[in-house]
Amino acid sequence: MKPKPHILVSNDDGIDAEGLYVLVKALKRFANVSVVAPSIQQSAVGHAITVRTPLRAHKFYRDGKLFGYAVDGTPADCVKLAIRTLLRAKPDLVISGINDGLNTAVNVIYSGTVSAATEGTILGIPSIAVSLESTRKPNFKPAAKIAMSIAKFVCRESLPKDTVLNINVPALPAAKIKGIMFTRQGRSRWDDEFFQRKDPRNRDYYWLAGKMQILDHEEDVDQVALRHGYISITPIHFDLTHYKFLETMRAEWHVET
Amino acid sequence: MKPKPHILVSNDDGIDAEGLYVLVKALKRFANVSVVAPSIQQSAVGHAITVRTPLRAHKFYRDGKLFGYAVDGTPADCVKLAIRTLLRAKPDLVISGINDGLNTAVNVIYSGTVSAATEGTILGIPSIAVSLESTRKPNFKPAAKIAMSIAKFVCRESLPKDTVLNINVPALPAAKIKGIMFTRQGRSRWDDEFFQRKDPRNRDYYWLAGKMQILDHEEDVDQVALRHGYISITPIHFDLTHYKFLETMRAEWHVET
Repeated sequence: MKPKPHILVSNDDGIDAEGLYVLVKALKRFANVSVVAPSIQQSAVGHAITVRTPLRAHKFYRDGKLFGYAVDGTPADCVKLAIRTLLRAKPDLVISGINDGLNTAVNVIYSGTVSAATEGTILGIPSIAVSLESTRKPNFKPAAKIAMSIAKFVCRESLPKDTVLNINVPALPAAKIKGIMFTRQGRSRWDDEFFQRKDPRNRDYYWLAGKMQILDHEEDVDQVALRHGYISITPIHFDLTHYKFLETMRAEWHVET
Repeated sequence: MKPKPHILVSNDDGIDAEGLYVLVKALKRFANVSVVAPSIQQSAVGHAITVRTPLRAHKFYRDGKLFGYAVDGTPADCVKLAIRTLLRAKPDLVISGINDGLNTAVNVIYSGTVSAATEGTILGIPSIAVSLESTRKPNFKPAAKIAMSIAKFVCRESLPKDTVLNINVPALPAAKIKGIMFTRQGRSRWDDEFFQRKDPRNRDYYWLAGKMQILDHEEDVDQVALRHGYISITPIHFDLTHYKFLETMRAEWHVET
Protein backbone atom coordinates (compact mmCIF):
# COMPACT_ATOMS: atom_id res chain seq x y z
CA MET A 1 0.00 0.00 0.00
CA LYS A 2 1.28 3.44 -0.87
CA PRO A 3 1.97 5.67 2.13
CA LYS A 4 -0.47 8.53 2.67
CA PRO A 5 0.57 11.79 0.99
CA HIS A 6 1.72 14.63 3.21
CA ILE A 7 -0.05 17.94 2.52
CA LEU A 8 0.88 21.37 3.89
CA VAL A 9 -2.15 23.66 4.24
CA SER A 10 -1.89 27.42 4.55
CA ASN A 11 -4.06 30.42 3.71
CA ASP A 12 -4.31 34.20 4.03
CA ASP A 13 -7.47 34.48 6.13
CA GLY A 14 -5.61 33.26 9.24
CA ILE A 15 -5.26 29.91 10.99
CA ASP A 16 -8.65 30.22 12.72
CA ALA A 17 -10.56 30.72 9.45
CA GLU A 18 -13.49 28.43 8.77
CA GLY A 19 -12.43 27.80 5.14
CA LEU A 20 -9.08 26.39 6.25
CA TYR A 21 -10.72 24.19 8.87
CA VAL A 22 -13.21 22.64 6.43
CA LEU A 23 -10.39 22.03 3.92
CA VAL A 24 -8.17 20.35 6.52
CA LYS A 25 -11.02 18.09 7.65
CA ALA A 26 -11.65 16.96 4.05
CA LEU A 27 -7.97 16.35 3.26
CA LYS A 28 -7.41 14.30 6.43
CA ARG A 29 -9.62 11.60 4.90
CA PHE A 30 -6.76 10.55 2.63
CA ALA A 31 -3.65 12.46 3.68
CA ASN A 32 -1.42 13.48 6.56
CA VAL A 33 -1.99 17.19 6.94
CA SER A 34 0.30 19.87 8.42
CA VAL A 35 -1.10 23.35 8.99
CA VAL A 36 1.10 26.47 9.03
CA ALA A 37 -0.90 29.65 8.52
CA PRO A 38 -0.82 33.34 9.47
CA SER A 39 -1.84 34.16 13.03
CA ILE A 40 -3.97 37.03 11.74
CA GLN A 41 -5.87 37.91 8.55
CA GLN A 42 -3.47 38.79 5.69
CA SER A 43 -5.70 39.61 2.72
CA ALA A 44 -4.26 41.51 -0.24
CA VAL A 45 -0.67 41.17 0.94
CA GLY A 46 0.44 39.96 -2.48
CA HIS A 47 3.68 38.03 -2.50
CA ALA A 48 5.10 39.87 0.52
CA ILE A 49 7.82 38.26 2.59
CA THR A 50 9.20 39.44 5.92
CA VAL A 51 12.85 40.38 5.65
CA ARG A 52 13.32 43.17 8.20
CA THR A 53 11.87 41.59 11.33
CA PRO A 54 12.14 38.04 12.65
CA LEU A 55 9.24 35.59 12.47
CA ARG A 56 7.61 33.76 15.35
CA ALA A 57 5.60 30.54 15.21
CA HIS A 58 3.08 29.60 17.89
CA LYS A 59 1.43 26.22 18.44
CA PHE A 60 -2.28 26.55 17.70
CA TYR A 61 -4.84 24.29 19.37
CA ARG A 62 -8.34 23.50 18.17
CA ASP A 63 -10.86 21.25 19.95
CA GLY A 64 -8.21 20.57 22.60
CA LYS A 65 -5.70 19.16 20.08
CA LEU A 66 -2.63 20.57 18.33
CA PHE A 67 -3.97 21.85 14.99
CA GLY A 68 -0.88 23.53 13.52
CA TYR A 69 1.45 26.52 13.71
CA ALA A 70 0.34 30.13 13.62
CA VAL A 71 3.06 32.38 12.17
CA ASP A 72 3.26 36.14 12.75
CA GLY A 73 3.88 36.78 9.07
CA THR A 74 2.53 36.65 5.52
CA PRO A 75 1.21 33.57 3.67
CA ALA A 76 4.51 33.29 1.73
CA ASP A 77 6.43 33.49 5.06
CA CYS A 78 4.32 30.60 6.42
CA VAL A 79 5.12 28.31 3.52
CA LYS A 80 8.83 29.20 3.53
CA LEU A 81 9.15 28.71 7.29
CA ALA A 82 7.12 25.47 7.24
CA ILE A 83 9.13 23.84 4.47
CA ARG A 84 12.55 25.12 5.49
CA THR A 85 12.26 24.76 9.25
CA LEU A 86 9.05 23.70 10.99
CA LEU A 87 8.17 20.48 9.13
CA ARG A 88 10.31 17.39 9.59
CA ALA A 89 9.72 16.21 6.00
CA LYS A 90 9.05 18.08 2.76
CA PRO A 91 5.33 17.86 1.93
CA ASP A 92 4.12 16.25 -1.30
CA LEU A 93 1.67 19.05 -1.93
CA VAL A 94 0.85 22.58 -0.72
CA ILE A 95 -2.78 23.75 -0.65
CA SER A 96 -3.71 27.31 0.21
CA GLY A 97 -7.28 28.13 1.18
CA ILE A 98 -10.14 27.86 1.16
CA ASN A 99 -10.21 31.62 0.72
CA ASP A 100 -13.40 33.49 1.54
CA GLY A 101 -13.62 35.41 -1.75
CA LEU A 102 -12.61 34.74 -5.36
CA ASN A 103 -9.07 35.18 -6.66
CA THR A 104 -9.62 35.76 -10.34
CA ALA A 105 -8.44 38.27 -12.96
CA VAL A 106 -6.24 41.04 -11.52
CA ASN A 107 -6.94 39.83 -7.96
CA VAL A 108 -4.51 36.98 -8.59
CA ILE A 109 -1.59 39.38 -8.19
CA TYR A 110 -2.94 40.94 -4.97
CA SER A 111 -3.83 37.57 -3.48
CA GLY A 112 -2.18 36.20 -0.36
CA THR A 113 -3.92 32.86 -1.00
CA VAL A 114 -2.27 32.49 -4.39
CA SER A 115 1.10 33.72 -3.04
CA ALA A 116 1.23 30.87 -0.49
CA ALA A 117 0.74 28.37 -3.30
CA THR A 118 3.26 30.18 -5.52
CA GLU A 119 5.83 29.99 -2.71
CA GLY A 120 5.25 26.22 -2.51
CA THR A 121 5.97 25.95 -6.22
CA ILE A 122 9.10 28.10 -5.92
CA LEU A 123 10.30 25.60 -3.31
CA GLY A 124 9.71 22.76 -5.77
CA ILE A 125 6.41 21.37 -4.45
CA PRO A 126 3.21 21.01 -6.52
CA SER A 127 0.82 23.65 -5.19
CA ILE A 128 -2.83 24.60 -5.38
CA ALA A 129 -4.82 27.69 -4.35
CA VAL A 130 -8.54 27.31 -3.62
CA SER A 131 -10.99 30.21 -3.29
CA LEU A 132 -14.75 30.37 -2.86
CA GLU A 133 -17.03 33.13 -4.07
CA SER A 134 -17.96 35.31 -1.10
CA THR A 135 -21.46 35.21 0.38
CA ARG A 136 -22.95 36.20 3.71
CA LYS A 137 -22.96 32.59 4.93
CA PRO A 138 -20.24 30.80 2.96
CA ASN A 139 -20.59 27.01 2.61
CA PHE A 140 -17.05 25.71 2.12
CA LYS A 141 -18.02 22.05 1.69
CA PRO A 142 -18.45 21.89 -2.12
CA ALA A 143 -15.11 23.70 -2.51
CA ALA A 144 -13.45 21.31 -0.04
CA LYS A 145 -14.76 18.35 -2.01
CA ILE A 146 -13.34 19.67 -5.30
CA ALA A 147 -10.06 20.57 -3.56
CA MET A 148 -9.83 16.96 -2.35
CA SER A 149 -10.46 15.56 -5.85
CA ILE A 150 -7.84 17.81 -7.42
CA ALA A 151 -5.38 17.12 -4.59
CA LYS A 152 -5.72 13.36 -5.17
CA PHE A 153 -5.32 13.86 -8.89
CA VAL A 154 -2.20 16.01 -8.47
CA CYS A 155 -0.68 13.59 -5.93
CA ARG A 156 -1.03 10.90 -8.60
CA GLU A 157 -0.19 12.84 -11.76
CA SER A 158 1.92 15.72 -10.37
CA LEU A 159 2.22 19.12 -12.05
CA PRO A 160 4.86 20.60 -14.33
CA LYS A 161 7.64 22.40 -12.47
CA ASP A 162 6.77 25.98 -11.47
CA THR A 163 3.03 25.61 -12.05
CA VAL A 164 0.29 26.50 -9.57
CA LEU A 165 -3.35 25.52 -9.99
CA ASN A 166 -5.57 28.46 -9.15
CA ILE A 167 -9.01 27.02 -8.34
CA ASN A 168 -12.09 29.22 -7.89
CA VAL A 169 -15.46 27.82 -6.90
CA PRO A 170 -18.83 29.54 -7.39
CA ALA A 171 -21.10 29.96 -4.35
CA LEU A 172 -23.59 27.32 -5.46
CA PRO A 173 -24.91 24.14 -3.86
CA ALA A 174 -22.88 21.13 -5.11
CA ALA A 175 -25.77 19.92 -7.28
CA LYS A 176 -25.93 23.23 -9.17
CA ILE A 177 -22.24 23.34 -10.09
CA LYS A 178 -21.98 22.50 -13.78
CA GLY A 179 -18.48 21.02 -13.71
CA ILE A 180 -14.87 22.11 -14.11
CA MET A 181 -13.58 24.48 -16.75
CA PHE A 182 -9.87 24.95 -17.47
CA THR A 183 -9.51 28.68 -17.86
CA ARG A 184 -7.13 31.57 -18.40
CA GLN A 185 -6.69 34.54 -16.07
CA GLY A 186 -9.08 37.37 -16.89
CA ARG A 187 -8.14 41.00 -17.46
CA SER A 188 -10.88 42.60 -15.38
CA ARG A 189 -9.57 45.06 -12.82
CA TRP A 190 -10.72 47.35 -10.05
CA ASP A 191 -12.21 50.70 -10.73
CA ASP A 192 -10.68 52.05 -7.52
CA GLU A 193 -12.10 54.90 -5.61
CA PHE A 194 -10.74 56.46 -2.44
CA PHE A 195 -13.16 57.81 0.14
CA GLN A 196 -11.53 60.92 1.56
CA ARG A 197 -12.42 61.65 5.18
CA LYS A 198 -11.28 63.91 8.00
CA ASP A 199 -10.11 62.60 11.36
CA PRO A 200 -11.13 64.38 14.63
CA ARG A 201 -8.04 66.57 14.27
CA ASN A 202 -9.17 67.65 10.79
CA ARG A 203 -6.52 65.70 8.92
CA ASP A 204 -7.31 63.80 5.71
CA TYR A 205 -7.29 60.05 5.38
CA TYR A 206 -8.25 57.77 2.49
CA TRP A 207 -10.14 54.46 2.38
CA LEU A 208 -9.66 52.26 -0.67
CA ALA A 209 -12.99 51.23 -2.20
CA GLY A 210 -14.34 50.68 -5.68
CA LYS A 211 -15.88 47.93 -7.73
CA MET A 212 -14.67 45.40 -10.27
CA GLN A 213 -14.71 46.64 -13.82
CA ILE A 214 -15.69 43.63 -15.93
CA LEU A 215 -13.54 43.50 -19.08
CA ASP A 216 -13.87 39.80 -19.85
CA HIS A 217 -16.57 38.12 -21.86
CA GLU A 218 -14.90 35.10 -23.50
CA GLU A 219 -16.15 31.78 -22.16
CA ASP A 220 -12.74 30.37 -21.25
CA VAL A 221 -11.84 33.16 -18.80
CA ASP A 222 -11.86 32.49 -15.03
CA GLN A 223 -14.56 35.00 -14.05
CA VAL A 224 -16.84 34.14 -16.96
CA ALA A 225 -16.68 30.40 -16.24
CA LEU A 226 -17.69 31.13 -12.64
CA ARG A 227 -20.54 33.36 -13.71
CA HIS A 228 -21.79 30.45 -15.83
CA GLY A 229 -21.76 28.09 -12.82
CA TYR A 230 -18.46 26.31 -13.44
CA ILE A 231 -15.49 25.70 -11.17
CA SER A 232 -12.57 27.56 -12.75
CA ILE A 233 -9.07 26.05 -12.75
CA THR A 234 -6.30 28.25 -14.16
CA PRO A 235 -2.71 27.00 -14.35
CA ILE A 236 -0.43 29.91 -13.45
CA HIS A 237 3.32 30.41 -13.28
CA PHE A 238 5.65 33.15 -12.11
CA ASP A 239 7.61 33.77 -15.25
CA LEU A 240 6.18 37.22 -15.95
CA THR A 241 8.12 37.71 -19.20
CA HIS A 242 5.94 39.13 -21.99
CA TYR A 243 7.52 36.91 -24.67
CA LYS A 244 5.58 38.31 -27.59
CA PHE A 245 6.61 41.88 -26.90
CA LEU A 246 10.17 40.73 -26.15
CA GLU A 247 10.39 39.60 -29.79
CA THR A 248 9.12 42.99 -30.97
CA MET A 249 11.66 44.82 -28.81
CA ARG A 250 14.50 42.69 -30.12
CA ALA A 251 13.48 43.32 -33.70
CA GLU A 252 12.46 46.97 -33.58
CA TRP A 253 13.74 48.88 -30.57
CA HIS A 254 16.78 51.07 -31.01
CA VAL A 255 17.35 52.97 -27.79
CA GLU A 256 20.20 55.42 -27.47
CA THR A 257 21.98 55.24 -24.15
CA MET B 1 6.32 72.66 -29.20
CA LYS B 2 4.98 69.55 -27.50
CA PRO B 3 4.11 70.00 -23.82
CA LYS B 4 6.45 68.37 -21.33
CA PRO B 5 5.44 64.85 -20.34
CA HIS B 6 4.16 64.33 -16.80
CA ILE B 7 5.90 61.50 -14.92
CA LEU B 8 4.85 59.97 -11.59
CA VAL B 9 7.82 58.62 -9.64
CA SER B 10 7.50 56.10 -6.81
CA ASN B 11 9.66 53.39 -5.23
CA ASP B 12 9.82 50.91 -2.37
CA ASP B 13 12.89 52.22 -0.55
CA GLY B 14 10.94 55.23 0.75
CA ILE B 15 10.56 58.86 -0.33
CA ASP B 16 13.86 59.89 1.27
CA ALA B 17 15.89 57.28 -0.66
CA GLU B 18 18.89 58.51 -2.63
CA GLY B 19 17.97 56.43 -5.70
CA LEU B 20 14.61 58.15 -6.03
CA TYR B 21 16.18 61.59 -5.60
CA VAL B 22 18.79 61.04 -8.34
CA LEU B 23 16.09 59.69 -10.67
CA VAL B 24 13.79 62.67 -10.06
CA LYS B 25 16.63 65.11 -10.71
CA ALA B 26 17.42 63.46 -14.04
CA LEU B 27 13.79 63.29 -15.19
CA LYS B 28 13.15 66.95 -14.34
CA ARG B 29 15.46 67.86 -17.22
CA PHE B 30 12.72 67.00 -19.72
CA ALA B 31 9.52 66.31 -17.77
CA ASN B 32 7.15 67.53 -15.07
CA VAL B 33 7.65 65.14 -12.20
CA SER B 34 5.27 64.20 -9.36
CA VAL B 35 6.59 62.12 -6.48
CA VAL B 36 4.35 59.87 -4.37
CA ALA B 37 6.31 57.25 -2.45
CA PRO B 38 6.14 55.26 0.79
CA SER B 39 7.00 57.15 3.95
CA ILE B 40 9.12 54.22 5.10
CA GLN B 41 11.15 51.42 3.50
CA GLN B 42 8.86 48.75 1.96
CA SER B 43 11.19 46.14 0.48
CA ALA B 44 9.85 42.67 -0.38
CA VAL B 45 6.21 43.68 0.10
CA GLY B 46 5.26 42.15 -3.25
CA HIS B 47 2.06 43.48 -4.73
CA ALA B 48 0.49 44.23 -1.34
CA ILE B 49 -2.29 46.79 -1.08
CA THR B 50 -3.83 48.23 2.06
CA VAL B 51 -7.50 47.31 2.39
CA ARG B 52 -8.11 47.08 6.15
CA THR B 53 -6.76 50.41 7.35
CA PRO B 54 -7.02 53.88 5.81
CA LEU B 55 -4.08 55.55 4.10
CA ARG B 56 -2.54 58.89 4.96
CA ALA B 57 -0.48 61.13 2.71
CA HIS B 58 1.96 63.73 4.07
CA LYS B 59 3.62 66.56 2.19
CA PHE B 60 7.36 65.87 2.05
CA TYR B 61 9.89 68.70 1.77
CA ARG B 62 13.45 68.49 0.50
CA ASP B 63 15.94 71.39 0.33
CA GLY B 64 13.16 73.65 1.67
CA LYS B 65 10.80 72.89 -1.24
CA LEU B 66 7.80 70.62 -1.65
CA PHE B 67 9.23 67.41 -3.10
CA GLY B 68 6.17 65.13 -3.11
CA TYR B 69 3.79 63.07 -0.99
CA ALA B 70 4.86 60.42 1.50
CA VAL B 71 2.16 57.76 1.91
CA ASP B 72 1.89 55.45 4.92
CA GLY B 73 1.39 52.43 2.68
CA THR B 74 2.89 50.08 0.13
CA PRO B 75 4.33 51.01 -3.30
CA ALA B 76 1.13 49.82 -5.02
CA ASP B 77 -0.92 51.95 -2.58
CA CYS B 78 1.16 55.01 -3.51
CA VAL B 79 0.52 54.62 -7.22
CA LYS B 80 -3.20 53.91 -6.74
CA LEU B 81 -3.67 56.89 -4.39
CA ALA B 82 -1.59 59.21 -6.60
CA ILE B 83 -3.45 58.43 -9.80
CA ARG B 84 -6.94 58.16 -8.32
CA THR B 85 -6.80 61.06 -5.86
CA LEU B 86 -3.64 63.07 -5.22
CA LEU B 87 -2.63 64.11 -8.75
CA ARG B 88 -4.73 66.61 -10.66
CA ALA B 89 -4.00 64.98 -14.03
CA LYS B 90 -3.22 61.40 -15.03
CA PRO B 91 0.54 61.05 -15.62
CA ASP B 92 1.91 59.99 -19.02
CA LEU B 93 4.35 57.58 -17.43
CA VAL B 94 5.05 55.89 -14.07
CA ILE B 95 8.65 55.16 -13.06
CA SER B 96 9.49 53.21 -9.92
CA GLY B 97 13.00 53.35 -8.50
CA ILE B 98 15.87 53.58 -8.60
CA ASN B 99 15.89 50.58 -6.31
CA ASP B 100 19.03 49.88 -4.30
CA GLY B 101 19.36 46.21 -5.33
CA LEU B 102 18.52 44.15 -8.42
CA ASN B 103 15.03 42.87 -9.19
CA THR B 104 15.71 39.89 -11.41
CA ALA B 105 14.59 36.26 -11.59
CA VAL B 106 12.31 35.22 -8.72
CA ASN B 107 12.86 38.58 -6.98
CA VAL B 108 10.51 40.15 -9.50
CA ILE B 109 7.54 38.64 -7.67
CA TYR B 110 8.72 39.79 -4.21
CA SER B 111 9.60 43.25 -5.46
CA GLY B 112 7.87 46.37 -4.23
CA THR B 113 9.68 48.37 -6.93
CA VAL B 114 8.16 46.26 -9.69
CA SER B 115 4.73 46.26 -8.01
CA ALA B 116 4.54 50.07 -8.15
CA ALA B 117 5.17 49.92 -11.90
CA THR B 118 2.72 47.04 -12.33
CA GLU B 119 0.04 49.08 -10.56
CA GLY B 120 0.68 51.93 -12.99
CA THR B 121 0.11 49.54 -15.88
CA ILE B 122 -3.06 48.16 -14.30
CA LEU B 123 -4.32 51.74 -14.22
CA GLY B 124 -3.58 52.09 -17.93
CA ILE B 125 -0.33 54.06 -17.82
CA PRO B 126 2.96 52.95 -19.43
CA SER B 127 5.24 52.01 -16.53
CA ILE B 128 8.90 51.27 -15.87
CA ALA B 129 10.78 49.79 -12.89
CA VAL B 130 14.48 50.62 -12.48
CA SER B 131 16.86 48.82 -10.14
CA LEU B 132 20.60 49.08 -9.56
CA GLU B 133 22.88 46.29 -8.43
CA SER B 134 23.66 46.81 -4.74
CA THR B 135 27.09 47.97 -3.61
CA ARG B 136 28.43 49.59 -0.48
CA LYS B 137 28.46 53.04 -2.12
CA PRO B 138 25.86 52.92 -4.88
CA ASN B 139 26.26 55.39 -7.74
CA PHE B 140 22.76 55.92 -9.14
CA LYS B 141 23.82 58.26 -11.94
CA PRO B 142 24.38 55.75 -14.78
CA ALA B 143 21.05 54.10 -13.94
CA ALA B 144 19.31 57.52 -13.89
CA LYS B 145 20.76 58.28 -17.30
CA ILE B 146 19.47 55.06 -18.81
CA ALA B 147 16.09 55.55 -17.07
CA MET B 148 15.89 58.98 -18.71
CA SER B 149 16.67 57.57 -22.18
CA ILE B 150 14.09 54.82 -21.85
CA ALA B 151 11.52 57.22 -20.39
CA LYS B 152 11.95 59.54 -23.39
CA PHE B 153 11.69 56.57 -25.75
CA VAL B 154 8.52 55.28 -24.08
CA CYS B 155 6.94 58.76 -24.01
CA ARG B 156 7.47 58.84 -27.77
CA GLU B 157 6.71 55.22 -28.74
CA SER B 158 4.50 54.10 -25.82
CA LEU B 159 4.22 50.47 -24.68
CA PRO B 160 1.65 47.78 -25.40
CA LYS B 161 -1.23 47.73 -22.91
CA ASP B 162 -0.47 45.86 -19.68
CA THR B 163 3.29 45.79 -20.20
CA VAL B 164 5.92 46.91 -17.68
CA LEU B 165 9.58 47.40 -18.51
CA ASN B 166 11.72 45.91 -15.77
CA ILE B 167 15.14 47.56 -16.05
CA ASN B 168 18.16 46.34 -14.08
CA VAL B 169 21.51 48.11 -14.21
CA PRO B 170 24.88 46.61 -13.25
CA ALA B 171 27.01 48.46 -10.67
CA LEU B 172 29.60 49.63 -13.20
CA PRO B 173 30.89 53.05 -14.21
CA ALA B 174 28.97 54.29 -17.28
CA ALA B 175 31.97 53.72 -19.57
CA LYS B 176 32.16 50.04 -18.63
CA ILE B 177 28.49 49.24 -19.35
CA LYS B 178 28.41 47.29 -22.61
CA GLY B 179 24.91 48.34 -23.71
CA ILE B 180 21.33 47.20 -23.39
CA MET B 181 20.12 43.62 -23.68
CA PHE B 182 16.42 42.72 -24.02
CA THR B 183 16.02 39.75 -21.73
CA ARG B 184 13.62 37.27 -20.20
CA GLN B 185 13.04 36.76 -16.48
CA GLY B 186 15.42 34.18 -15.01
CA ARG B 187 14.45 31.17 -12.94
CA SER B 188 17.08 31.51 -10.22
CA ARG B 189 15.62 31.48 -6.73
CA TRP B 190 16.62 31.77 -3.09
CA ASP B 191 18.07 28.91 -1.19
CA ASP B 192 16.38 30.15 1.98
CA GLU B 193 17.69 29.45 5.39
CA PHE B 194 16.14 30.51 8.69
CA PHE B 195 18.44 31.36 11.58
CA GLN B 196 16.70 30.09 14.69
CA ARG B 197 17.45 32.10 17.83
CA LYS B 198 16.14 32.42 21.38
CA ASP B 199 14.87 35.67 22.83
CA PRO B 200 15.72 36.69 26.45
CA ARG B 201 12.61 34.81 27.60
CA ASN B 202 13.88 31.64 25.88
CA ARG B 203 11.33 31.69 23.09
CA ASP B 204 12.28 30.84 19.49
CA TYR B 205 12.32 33.30 16.66
CA TYR B 206 13.44 32.96 13.04
CA TRP B 207 15.39 35.26 10.74
CA LEU B 208 15.07 34.73 7.00
CA ALA B 209 18.49 34.46 5.34
CA GLY B 210 19.97 32.46 2.49
CA LYS B 211 21.66 33.07 -0.81
CA MET B 212 20.61 33.10 -4.45
CA GLN B 213 20.79 29.76 -6.13
CA ILE B 214 21.90 30.46 -9.71
CA LEU B 215 19.89 28.34 -12.13
CA ASP B 216 20.31 30.48 -15.25
CA HIS B 217 23.12 30.33 -17.76
CA GLU B 218 21.57 31.33 -21.10
CA GLU B 219 22.79 34.66 -22.41
CA ASP B 220 19.34 36.26 -22.85
CA VAL B 221 18.32 35.93 -19.18
CA ASP B 222 18.18 39.02 -16.94
CA GLN B 223 20.80 37.96 -14.40
CA VAL B 224 23.21 36.60 -16.98
CA ALA B 225 23.07 39.79 -19.07
CA LEU B 226 23.93 41.79 -15.94
CA ARG B 227 26.79 39.48 -15.06
CA HIS B 228 28.18 40.13 -18.55
CA GLY B 229 28.05 43.91 -18.02
CA TYR B 230 24.81 44.72 -19.85
CA ILE B 231 21.76 46.67 -18.76
CA SER B 232 18.88 44.18 -18.71
CA ILE B 233 15.40 45.19 -19.89
CA THR B 234 12.65 42.58 -19.49
CA PRO B 235 9.11 43.30 -20.65
CA ILE B 236 6.74 41.78 -18.07
CA HIS B 237 2.99 41.48 -17.75
CA PHE B 238 0.56 40.28 -15.11
CA ASP B 239 -1.28 37.60 -17.02
CA LEU B 240 0.14 34.67 -15.07
CA THR B 241 -1.67 32.02 -17.15
CA HIS B 242 0.59 29.11 -18.07
CA TYR B 243 -0.83 28.80 -21.59
CA LYS B 244 1.19 25.80 -22.64
CA PHE B 245 0.06 23.71 -19.71
CA LEU B 246 -3.49 24.98 -20.12
CA GLU B 247 -3.54 23.27 -23.53
CA THR B 248 -2.30 20.04 -21.96
CA MET B 249 -4.95 20.18 -19.26
CA ARG B 250 -7.69 20.76 -21.79
CA ALA B 251 -6.53 17.83 -23.89
CA GLU B 252 -5.58 15.33 -21.23
CA TRP B 253 -7.04 16.01 -17.79
CA HIS B 254 -10.08 14.10 -16.72
CA VAL B 255 -10.83 14.96 -13.11
CA GLU B 256 -13.73 13.36 -11.31
CA THR B 257 -15.63 15.78 -9.14
